[in-house]
Amino acid sequence: MSRYDTVVTNGRVVLPGLSNLAEVAIGIREGRIAAVAEDITASEADEVVDARGLAVLPGGVDSHFHIGIYRPIEQDAASETESSLVGGATSIISYFRTGSHYLNKTGSYREILPEVLGKADGRAHTDYGFHIAPMTTAQLDEIDWMVGEAGVPSFKYYMFYKGLNLAASSTDAAAYTMSDSYDLGHLFAMMETIAEADAKYGARGRVSLSLHCESAELIKLFIERVKNLSLPPLEAYSRARPALSERLSIHEAGVLASEARVRINLLHLSSADSVRAVREIRRLYPDLDIRAETTLHHLCLTYDMLEGQGLGGKVNPPIRTRHDVDALWDAVADGTIQWIASDHACCLEELKQDDLWPAQPGFGGTALLYPVLISEGYHKRGLSLERIAQLVSSNPASAYALYPVKGVIAVGSDADLALIDLEREQVVSRELLHSAQDHTPFKGVSVRGWPSVSMLRGRVVYRDGEVVAAPSGAFLPRPLSGRRQAAVTL
Amino acid sequence: MSRYDTVVTNGRVVLPGLSNLAEVAIGIREGRIAAVAEDITASEADEVVDARGLAVLPGGVDSHFHIGIYRPIEQDAASETESSLVGGATSIISYFRTGSHYLNKTGSYREILPEVLGKADGRAHTDYGFHIAPMTTAQLDEIDWMVGEAGVPSFKYYMFYKGLNLAASSTDAAAYTMSDSYDLGHLFAMMETIAEADAKYGARGRVSLSLHCESAELIKLFIERVKNLSLPPLEAYSRARPALSERLSIHEAGVLASEARVRINLLHLSSADSVRAVREIRRLYPDLDIRAETTLHHLCLTYDMLEGQGLGGKVNPPIRTRHDVDALWDAVADGTIQWIASDHACCLEELKQDDLWPAQPGFGGTALLYPVLISEGYHKRGLSLERIAQLVSSNPASAYALYPVKGVIAVGSDADLALIDLEREQVVSRELLHSAQDHTPFKGVSVRGWPSVSMLRGRVVYRDGEVVAAPSGAFLPRPLSGRRQAAVTL
Amino acid sequence: MSRYDTVVTNGRVVLPGLSNLAEVAIGIREGRIAAVAEDITASEADEVVDARGLAVLPGGVDSHFHIGIYRPIEQDAASETESSLVGGATSIISYFRTGSHYLNKTGSYREILPEVLGKADGRAHTDYGFHIAPMTTAQLDEIDWMVGEAGVPSFKYYMFYKGLNLAASSTDAAAYTMSDSYDLGHLFAMMETIAEADAKYGARGRVSLSLHCESAELIKLFIERVKNLSLPPLEAYSRARPALSERLSIHEAGVLASEARVRINLLHLSSADSVRAVREIRRLYPDLDIRAETTLHHLCLTYDMLEGQGLGGKVNPPIRTRHDVDALWDAVADGTIQWIASDHACCLEELKQDDLWPAQPGFGGTALLYPVLISEGYHKRGLSLERIAQLVSSNPASAYALYPVKGVIAVGSDADLALIDLEREQVVSRELLHSAQDHTPFKGVSVRGWPSVSMLRGRVVYRDGEVVAAPSGAFLPRPLSGRRQAAVTL
Amino acid sequence: MSRYDTVVTNGRVVLPGLSNLAEVAIGIREGRIAAVAEDITASEADEVVDARGLAVLPGGVDSHFHIGIYRPIEQDAASETESSLVGGATSIISYFRTGSHYLNKTGSYREILPEVLGKADGRAHTDYGFHIAPMTTAQLDEIDWMVGEAGVPSFKYYMFYKGLNLAASSTDAAAYTMSDSYDLGHLFAMMETIAEADAKYGARGRVSLSLHCESAELIKLFIERVKNLSLPPLEAYSRARPALSERLSIHEAGVLASEARVRINLLHLSSADSVRAVREIRRLYPDLDIRAETTLHHLCLTYDMLEGQGLGGKVNPPIRTRHDVDALWDAVADGTIQWIASDHACCLEELKQDDLWPAQPGFGGTALLYPVLISEGYHKRGLSLERIAQLVSSNPASAYALYPVKGVIAVGSDADLALIDLEREQVVSRELLHSAQDHTPFKGVSVRGWPSVSMLRGRVVYRDGEVVAAPSGAFLPRPLSGRRQAAVTL
Repeated sequence: MSRYDTVVTNGRVVLPGLSNLAEVAIGIREGRIAAVAEDITASEADEVVDARGLAVLPGGVDSHFHIGIYRPIEQDAASETESSLVGGATSIISYFRTGSHYLNKTGSYREILPEVLGKADGRAHTDYGFHIAPMTTAQLDEIDWMVGEAGVPSFKYYMFYKGLNLAASSTDAAAYTMSDSYDLGHLFAMMETIAEADAKYGARGRVSLSLHCESAELIKLFIERVKNLSLPPLEAYSRARPALSERLSIHEAGVLASEARVRINLLHLSSADSVRAVREIRRLYPDLDIRAETTLHHLCLTYDMLEGQGLGGKVNPPIRTRHDVDALWDAVADGTIQWIASDHACCLEELKQDDLWPAQPGFGGTALLYPVLISEGYHKRGLSLERIAQLVSSNPASAYALYPVKGVIAVGSDADLALIDLEREQVVSRELLHSAQDHTPFKGVSVRGWPSVSMLRGRVVYRDGEVVAAPSGAFLPRPLSGRRQAAVTL
Repeated sequence: MSRYDTVVTNGRVVLPGLSNLAEVAIGIREGRIAAVAEDITASEADEVVDARGLAVLPGGVDSHFHIGIYRPIEQDAASETESSLVGGATSIISYFRTGSHYLNKTGSYREILPEVLGKADGRAHTDYGFHIAPMTTAQLDEIDWMVGEAGVPSFKYYMFYKGLNLAASSTDAAAYTMSDSYDLGHLFAMMETIAEADAKYGARGRVSLSLHCESAELIKLFIERVKNLSLPPLEAYSRARPALSERLSIHEAGVLASEARVRINLLHLSSADSVRAVREIRRLYPDLDIRAETTLHHLCLTYDMLEGQGLGGKVNPPIRTRHDVDALWDAVADGTIQWIASDHACCLEELKQDDLWPAQPGFGGTALLYPVLISEGYHKRGLSLERIAQLVSSNPASAYALYPVKGVIAVGSDADLALIDLEREQVVSRELLHSAQDHTPFKGVSVRGWPSVSMLRGRVVYRDGEVVAAPSGAFLPRPLSGRRQAAVTL
Repeated sequence: MSRYDTVVTNGRVVLPGLSNLAEVAIGIREGRIAAVAEDITASEADEVVDARGLAVLPGGVDSHFHIGIYRPIEQDAASETESSLVGGATSIISYFRTGSHYLNKTGSYREILPEVLGKADGRAHTDYGFHIAPMTTAQLDEIDWMVGEAGVPSFKYYMFYKGLNLAASSTDAAAYTMSDSYDLGHLFAMMETIAEADAKYGARGRVSLSLHCESAELIKLFIERVKNLSLPPLEAYSRARPALSERLSIHEAGVLASEARVRINLLHLSSADSVRAVREIRRLYPDLDIRAETTLHHLCLTYDMLEGQGLGGKVNPPIRTRHDVDALWDAVADGTIQWIASDHACCLEELKQDDLWPAQPGFGGTALLYPVLISEGYHKRGLSLERIAQLVSSNPASAYALYPVKGVIAVGSDADLALIDLEREQVVSRELLHSAQDHTPFKGVSVRGWPSVSMLRGRVVYRDGEVVAAPSGAFLPRPLSGRRQAAVTL
Repeated sequence: MSRYDTVVTNGRVVLPGLSNLAEVAIGIREGRIAAVAEDITASEADEVVDARGLAVLPGGVDSHFHIGIYRPIEQDAASETESSLVGGATSIISYFRTGSHYLNKTGSYREILPEVLGKADGRAHTDYGFHIAPMTTAQLDEIDWMVGEAGVPSFKYYMFYKGLNLAASSTDAAAYTMSDSYDLGHLFAMMETIAEADAKYGARGRVSLSLHCESAELIKLFIERVKNLSLPPLEAYSRARPALSERLSIHEAGVLASEARVRINLLHLSSADSVRAVREIRRLYPDLDIRAETTLHHLCLTYDMLEGQGLGGKVNPPIRTRHDVDALWDAVADGTIQWIASDHACCLEELKQDDLWPAQPGFGGTALLYPVLISEGYHKRGLSLERIAQLVSSNPASAYALYPVKGVIAVGSDADLALIDLEREQVVSRELLHSAQDHTPFKGVSVRGWPSVSMLRGRVVYRDGEVVAAPSGAFLPRPLSGRRQAAVTL
């Protein structure tokens, strides 16, 4: 019997605390990292993964995902996590809620969550967890159970559902959310309930609320204004959901969270103004745990780039301008933003079509998580690979109670690895992404830096454009238990 | 022919820029102050008002008033301005809006405003102006006309109407406001329109938006919570509309106003938390013109004081605690708050009755404007009379484009004067107040400092508990014209 | 006997609280304003001053002056206060200290202050007071006496004397100051002593410490650097005493004053950086009474303007750049700076000569106090005349315990008036200024707005370029007694 | 030949990025860590260090040390680094300057630094580097050489030397520093020079200036005051060098550093007020690299504790109160302070004696670096061991260009390890500390947590109270070369 099941050799490894790459080998046993050493020999392992010429990073944790929003969970769980492997992400956390889309029903999460897990079971190529959005008053009473027993310590509130549906094509929000109380009162009650759960269970792992910060009341006004103008559709959409709307929502969230003393995550910041608002509320409420996310598309695309390419790039919040892209990168660089996710939603062309307002928002991007960060962040803006690993892996893992089982290359951690050719250039096409989505707004974008191999719990599951293993992703009940790690608390 | 129509002699006068009282006489001609001098003799005037033993202050400008909200305008215009004279106020500015209460209808202000003016005409004992609340999208188009031609440069938005009626007993807000767009989008559009009017007409006088800062969405949540508790009714009402609701609304107002660049007035701050929020948004938006008001009842009453006295003290925002009263006085002292008004609304006992939730909010207090400030501010907390004259007269007159015709004792200004016995003690009863309201939450409150004489444009209209002149109040088209003042712009 | 000794008629008057000019007459009796009225007739007064075509402002209070610094007190008191009258200033407050210059000696202020007063007595054309700089430890013990008995509630510390003489030509500071303890320790002890005097006597009038904010240690470094460059002399001087030096000193002053809780005045800010530093320390120490001054030369001159004109413009802190001038005006406009003074020091050409380093600093400017403010502030930058009267008269009078006897046109106040032709243009020459100084760095500067008449306590003392009265200035023991004013404290 | 020279087994190891201890073995080869793994067997190594029951932390980096200040460098280098080993510190960085003490001479560092290195060579038990204080203008010209060639990228300025010697017993500072320009001008010039060196060499490692923040001018004042009181000596010393003095100096440093744009380290914060000042300047200058240090004695001792124990505890800045100790721990916990050092200076009893003012300041503490942090930080205040390793090892190593060769347990790093029995309790005596100092102010202090073994570059050099190896410490030319580490920069 060999000492290790697998050894990754010859790579240059991103280790925590080190800004330079280390020339070390990684010994893997039973899916976990058993050794980091200068000189593990091939003979010590059953299998050798030769990482010569590659950088070895912790597998990405794509913490903003939408399995099953527009298609059956069973289908998305399979096809879209395959796309994650392409981009070096080995764990995802998907949002789920009752109401329209997803399962198109409402009810008790004690019943619905098992149904969701059942549909995903056995199909995913990455490990996966869920964030849950309590939509009704009754569901608030299930938060304690979700945190304490169901492995879900992170929740979501959609600030723009108050008077709109997802596409902003209808104002019958109650029909959409299947809730009669989805407003700031509901939000505040949710915050208090989550804060209570954090007080009760937080020692085991962070319990938090994520917020989609846009304001329905402003959006309705600006949609009417934009309809009177003649603008390219994605510019129109950006103006119809202006940054002011994010800024307002972020300040609302700050006031309420500071009163409820709940930990919050501000999702998918899209604009210079939303970045400014995050800085403002951090100064206003210095004792509040406020974390901020942006997406790879907000770091990479502008509506000008997408002009003439249809509605594939419609997303909430919208794709904006170069000025906003630059402001987001500044916020990534100075620490205002803690992590980056894809907000991946497989949204077929038939749901987009040609009419801006009814077109469904969202698209997939998980395959580009590491590629965009390495291309735009490391090569163009000088971010270190250590910082990129934090943004894509360690920080979301920490925020969502997966760390250090996920999110780091350390002895005892799961052997989830992304082996990346830092110099490989790719022009994005939909085929490259391995998603079921039949188009991509990233089409034609050129990136430098592309994963060659993805390893999930010690097994090579993706290599050179091909998935090479049957789906082996497991549900991640959070906080991930210490039993899985060679670490003890004194 | 005498040199002056009237001379006020022997008084100690509050003059602008002087923290000490001046022993000067005031010569009045044609309703205006023609001289301030050490030694005007009785023989120089047709009439002498002997102010021996009295402090002479500029007539109060009670800038938050509700003529005709629950009763016909004709009746309130007469009886309630008489109450103002009792308290030394000689000008009032009343709020008016379409929708429920007031005239119980909606429509164009080009038609409705003349109707309102007609109903008030010839009945008021004080001079009076109106603030207008644009409730519908169509009315936004009338803002330019109101500022430019109709003498109305100040507007109002009610942040808590979004989902509630005035008494918070119904959630059919659209029926209540007779508007289908009364939300933050409407507010933002209004802000932009008012900012445009300010850019166009502001050189003649300040154009601004006043805000009632409470959040309907939070109130709905807290009402439900409070209904499950067994609390004294006014404490219940305070908890049902918590300070958090004001704080949220103030931050929302700050974000939107900073974007629209509109001048705002934050009305009737009621709590320590709302004061804190005002300071916060001033720091966030240092270039924004933000002014703050509180009311005499929030400076004087607590729900503990009113326990067992029924629902007479129900008001929006609610009467709160001693801690809040103290915080408001601190804010008055350090300049966070710029003026004090009564928010006077004549609300009869039959509209209150015994059930907290359907009871109508509001009550009268205009007769106590100077008395409460002198008793609680000057005697108890050491505020100078100069500062009190600013809070009750100069500052609201400046904010609302009446200054310096109103708001100051200066040559050229209207001879509106309050002659006050600083040492006279009174225990408040409803009879004392000369209002049509058949009860008062101030009943039994003891004050030190009481007006003896009120003069409107040079005439004694109130003396020692009696109105001594027929109604002579005139509509104040703002900004008040420079023609009325011996002042020229170079 | 006439009702008034004098009446000023037909003028347009700057009254407190009014941003427009008022067409009122001013009746004067026994040197004080007895009436402000629309219609005082010529027949009511022994003497009529016709102000037709003129604006009437409160006489300037030039609160930064150096009587007797380079010449005998007796001479300066006569000639330099005559210059003040030319510019509409009717009160001055002069700095005095022991050590080099002035009386070139040290000792007890109980002996020296009477000597100073004796030398000035009967010679001045304006009223005058003194600020005193305690230079030695022994003099600190005299602060209580100075405030309580000697009419001196304002003191000074020179932060740059620590290692330099006035001209920065010697580093034997101890010889210069005639003190062996002139450092930040001395400053802190002084601050504590002044704060004690303020606690004891402050109810009668503000007790404060003024600071010359420049750092000797930095200046020595930069002088050495500048000596190696070949620069025009006044640019060299500006670089040798860089704004960094002011910024450092202002922060030092802020730390120490916040600990001692003493009221401070930051004198003659000269630069954008010093303005920034004032804003910073106000934010750091919000409860501290911090007031800021700039001078008319820092608002008007640049070293570029003075190139080729010799060393007449050498002054501490130095004349700087257009960027700094603009920043100072911004600070005047937004309220960062509270008043403007001349820092007048009659420094003859023979003390300047041709060598930058030994040349004595300072020059006269008092005659331009109102002209520069009206020309640059009112005409060019839109400041109101009310604001200018605050900057030149009310605010320094308030800060230094002269208000409202001085600093305002009000019944009961001293009838000190500046009658100014707002449109009269003048090109500055030394003859125009009526100073003994035989040159002026303002030579050739064109101003619009020039005083026609100056009145001191009711008498015309200057008219149309001529002093028309014998010296009648009196010493102003501060705080000026309430007896002199028709005002009572309740 | 064995795979490893040494393996450390059975320990619970503090790894970067992990808040829990990891049960891993550490394989060592040629002095560096070659493997971190779950299961290295004893047979794989020539030598086994059994760490059962011990926590394994990175060897401490005691970055504030004074080799040779009062005794010959040769002696201190031997005896005092032995004391470091006792406390788990395996690297020290010592301050050196010309002037009084140390070598008692001045001159060129090109000559003196080799002399210092020569005296230390072969004697130290730990690795060691030097910080250098440029005292004279001429030495400023050597900064480029020191950074670029001599392995010294960190410098020091003593803000309180301006008018005092080290003991504050003489004001002949120039004689003491052997410099004629040791003031804020010298400091600013030094800052600019260091900033230039950072721009030139900084990519290789951080170039910075450390500051002793106390103000001579204030200290002189307070010494005189304290001499008039009858206080216990160490309380007297604390009052004679008040926290105000630190606060002033920190603000001075902030202003100058923000102008020069130099990286600074604020040494040995001793008080609540100095912590506050650090927070203030960070807010004022958000782009400035400002790091803060405190010492273990300021975290552990109060003057009350030391009353009656003589002058052993005299140190600059002084030992203060419980309130200050608590504020420092708060600052350690919230990240205001980045690292903790000993400020070790071997100061014999004969230099202290009985008279407060001439007594020399300073004492040794290096042996208590980890013990105090574990006892007071980990056990009493709940700091994680990961955080303690940052404070004592990673953070000073990073700040001073030693990281990651020193400061972390990572493959490729030097195998400097502290094996600590977290539960072992010790009462401090001088014998325990292995220093040449013949007394200790920590006498009688009880700590919980004591190092059992110290390893320097893979060798056990200290075990269970005995030094077990000949001196093997090497000079650390900084930045430590990448060649020494298995890491590459891409």
